[in-house]
Amino acid sequence: MLAVHLENRRVTLKRKPRPRRREGFALLRLLAGGICNTDLELLRGYYGFRGTPGHEFTAEVVEADNRALIGQRVVGEINLACGRCDWCRRDLGRHCPSRTVLGIVRHPGAFSEFFTLPERNLHILPPEIPTEHGVFVEPLAAACEILEQVAIPRSARVAVLGDGKLGLLAAQVLQVHGAEVHLYGRHPQKLALARGLGIETHRTERRPRAAYDWVVEATGAPEGLVQAVTMVRPRGAVVLKSTTHRAVRMDTAPVVVNEVTLVGSRCGRFQPALELLRSGAVRVDRMIADRFPLTRARQAFARAAAPGVLKVLLIAGEAR
Amino acid sequence: MLAVHLENRRVTLKRKPRPRRREGFALLRLLAGGICNTDLELLRGYYGFRGTPGHEFTAEVVEADNRALIGQRVVGEINLACGRCDWCRRDLGRHCPSRTVLGIVRHPGAFSEFFTLPERNLHILPPEIPTEHGVFVEPLAAACEILEQVAIPRSARVAVLGDGKLGLLAAQVLQVHGAEVHLYGRHPQKLALARGLGIETHRTERRPRAAYDWVVEATGAPEGLVQAVTMVRPRGAVVLKSTTHRAVRMDTAPVVVNEVTLVGSRCGRFQPALELLRSGAVRVDRMIADRFPLTRARQAFARAAAPGVLKVLLIAGEAR
Repeated sequence: MLAVHLENRRVTLKRKPRPRRREGFALLRLLAGGICNTDLELLRGYYGFRGTPGHEFTAEVVEADNRALIGQRVVGEINLACGRCDWCRRDLGRHCPSRTVLGIVRHPGAFSEFFTLPERNLHILPPEIPTEHGVFVEPLAAACEILEQVAIPRSARVAVLGDGKLGLLAAQVLQVHGAEVHLYGRHPQKLALARGLGIETHRTERRPRAAYDWVVEATGAPEGLVQAVTMVRPRGAVVLKSTTHRAVRMDTAPVVVNEVTLVGSRCGRFQPALELLRSGAVRVDRMIADRFPLTRARQAFARAAAPGVLKVLLIAGEAR
Repeated sequence: MLAVHLENRRVTLKRKPRPRRREGFALLRLLAGGICNTDLELLRGYYGFRGTPGHEFTAEVVEADNRALIGQRVVGEINLACGRCDWCRRDLGRHCPSRTVLGIVRHPGAFSEFFTLPERNLHILPPEIPTEHGVFVEPLAAACEILEQVAIPRSARVAVLGDGKLGLLAAQVLQVHGAEVHLYGRHPQKLALARGLGIETHRTERRPRAAYDWVVEATGAPEGLVQAVTMVRPRGAVVLKSTTHRAVRMDTAPVVVNEVTLVGSRCGRFQPALELLRSGAVRVDRMIADRFPLTRARQAFARAAAPGVLKVLLIAGEAR
């Protein structure tokens, strides 16, 4: 089978044997994958990564212990947890210290004709959700995680900093929650897309100082944190969604003096995200910038890394 | 009158006219002042400071609108708030955007024979608290602020990173709260002092990774934040107490991936601190490293800046 391979800052395709599923695991056939900023960071050497990336996907179940899964379209939670530790018992397997992570940490990713995941990680994609939209479940779950961690009142004014994929999803989730969302970005087309969804938009260059009790930082750049801290009011909270492997120089005095809370926020539960897509409350159709077959992964990664480009999909061909 | 003056990284004494109190303000005569790390930072140029520092003090009221105050020993909250804005109405004048701050921001400080503060900032020092211990009310209130901001369970294990003045106060406050406190530091004498108060101590070099749900960062150094983040468990909280004017290089990925919360924490209400000192629940007697008359302020600052030295006091002489 064909699998995308990242090594030494290069994207290549490798022929590999089809993976064998272990007990409790499903063998999955990729239908569509989404390139995430984290994948671009992996290409730059984040986590010292070498191997097959991909953690946003819709797939078809080929083999599984649970026969009811076979033939179903599924999406999957990306953390492969031990299932036995304290974290797992608290339903927080995404923090399990011995976890591997699909396409990120020691588990081959979804940008491959076939791959495996534990059956307990899978969610059947409801028929109302198109296959291509399934790739948004994972980042949308990450956007929903904000509301699991931070008690944002329904009528709060919230700034979302960053008009990329995660920023657009976070802005929509917060809008559905009932917040008055102000999206700050640098890309006129993305801001126009947000306005089409009824979201108030502003240019990042015109961001106000000390103006919001809640700021979601989704710039994908380490500098976003420093910008977000200037936007938040004393005693306010900044939710950090960007994972980058570059360090940022930061003066922590404003955080202490203004008693700001910074909340790191990563993966979320899939169930709320599936419901938001199924009901149409969150719209992702206009966030798809381009589609490439798996065989053109190098071009797909280059396109995804270009400034201002939203979600680039990898579509699996018929090759088995 | 004599006043300490900081300018161009030098400590000098100036003769100045005695300040005149405005309506609502008390004229105070310094009895004892405490040199804080913030004062040492001001000497290094923090806030572009030039003038008379000092915000930890016990003083005698010389003149006031409220005649019942005259002759009393008092301590005072350091933020001079407008009293009219939203923050002030919420009893959070310490975040009032138009505030001045005693000895820090545009209000001459307490290291002076006489100084002024609004009468509403003053608290009468209970007779059980010695004059020299009154200087600890302000930093102890800052330590109490931790529990106002973060809901630490009474039986939680909490690491306090930093065995300086604020670390020792925070460790005691958390111990009184009922937490199992582990104090991490680099100074054998300070750690011994903490053990004498029944606090478990460890060397900072031997700090464990991902071991605490709660870490209080009180190192006074910008690097403390990075160290504290390595000590906290996923989904845990780091309370930041250090204000330094130096920036720190920080990789935010662990904060995001482990969903750590960072809570900036500054000044607190005086009432809980006064009660902890009055009852003897918090002990500060052994934290006084040295005493100097106001006329020897330069030597006092040098002593306070020496490694491993706890609280240095400035005692006002009889000179009027």
